[in-house]
Amino acid sequence: MILQDFIRTVPDTPKPGILFYDISPLLGNGQAFAQAVRQMYEAVLPLAPTKILAPEARGFLFAAPLACQLGIGLVPVRKPGKLPCACHTVAYDLEYGSNSLCMHTDALSPDDRVLVVDDVLATGGTLKAMLQLAGLCGASVVGSCFLLELDALGGRAVLGDLPLTVLLHV
Amino acid sequence: MILQDFIRTVPDTPKPGILFYDISPLLGNGQAFAQAVRQMYEAVLPLAPTKILAPEARGFLFAAPLACQLGIGLVPVRKPGKLPCACHTVAYDLEYGSNSLCMHTDALSPDDRVLVVDDVLATGGTLKAMLQLAGLCGASVVGSCFLLELDALGGRAVLGDLPLTVLLHV
Repeated sequence: MILQDFIRTVPDTPKPGILFYDISPLLGNGQAFAQAVRQMYEAVLPLAPTKILAPEARGFLFAAPLACQLGIGLVPVRKPGKLPCACHTVAYDLEYGSNSLCMHTDALSPDDRVLVVDDVLATGGTLKAMLQLAGLCGASVVGSCFLLELDALGGRAVLGDLPLTVLLHV
Repeated sequence: MILQDFIRTVPDTPKPGILFYDISPLLGNGQAFAQAVRQMYEAVLPLAPTKILAPEARGFLFAAPLACQLGIGLVPVRKPGKLPCACHTVAYDLEYGSNSLCMHTDALSPDDRVLVVDDVLATGGTLKAMLQLAGLCGASVVGSCFLLELDALGGRAVLGDLPLTVLLHV
């Protein structure tokens, strides 16, 4: 089964000149979805993570089954106003303007080994914010894992020498 | 392991007089999270679903591992503007105002047996919208599954006689 066959490209979305990589066909195929998560599991197991950190909403789609298979907890990273208790908040730049991401302050401890998971690695803006959030709790990030990387955008530079797992490149 | 011990109550959130049930401690504990998904899996397996329908963002947290364990596809239900291809859209009422939920038109077919999954069953507004979205594709809903039900809000009435799995009641 070729996972790449389950990524649909949609031209001029969300705006003219942008090619959108739609993961819906992969999610919708039980075999492809399970295979993607299995490949992630096998790649990240040697990192011995103790927590997964993942941003809403699509990051949850891979982070949640991965956490269950690894038997470790998941820490949701959300937009402002969604998490009910005390939060760390980090602002990050978008192409136009900026946004913020939040994480409960009690979600990670300094002895946690954190794996950052999302569906797509693009410019690395979200990834950088997640690394900062983990750092605010004193936790160590041991690696990151993505379904798809948009190679031309160079987002992996944010990681420095941290281990990176990517299943598909475009 | 008592799953109820991993639900945190936060008073006056998001506004005075409302008690918020926070599932973060359950997600953050690998054993509790995996056990919750395992209990869902065992309960819904006899329904023989072919697709899971789940709303962003917290619905993905249980729907994704459940889909992987069942070996079936997941269909994301999202707010307007998030899905890149042709969508069915359904409006639903909130306490103040209304909102809309969208699903790709090609995500379900008439021979699909759909399981609707979310974290919390409250008034049933989101659930009703998801039943309508499945119906617009001609698919049959075979049941629904939630981590937590707020019994006093009566949301289950939306389901009529459809099978309902709930792990925790408050």
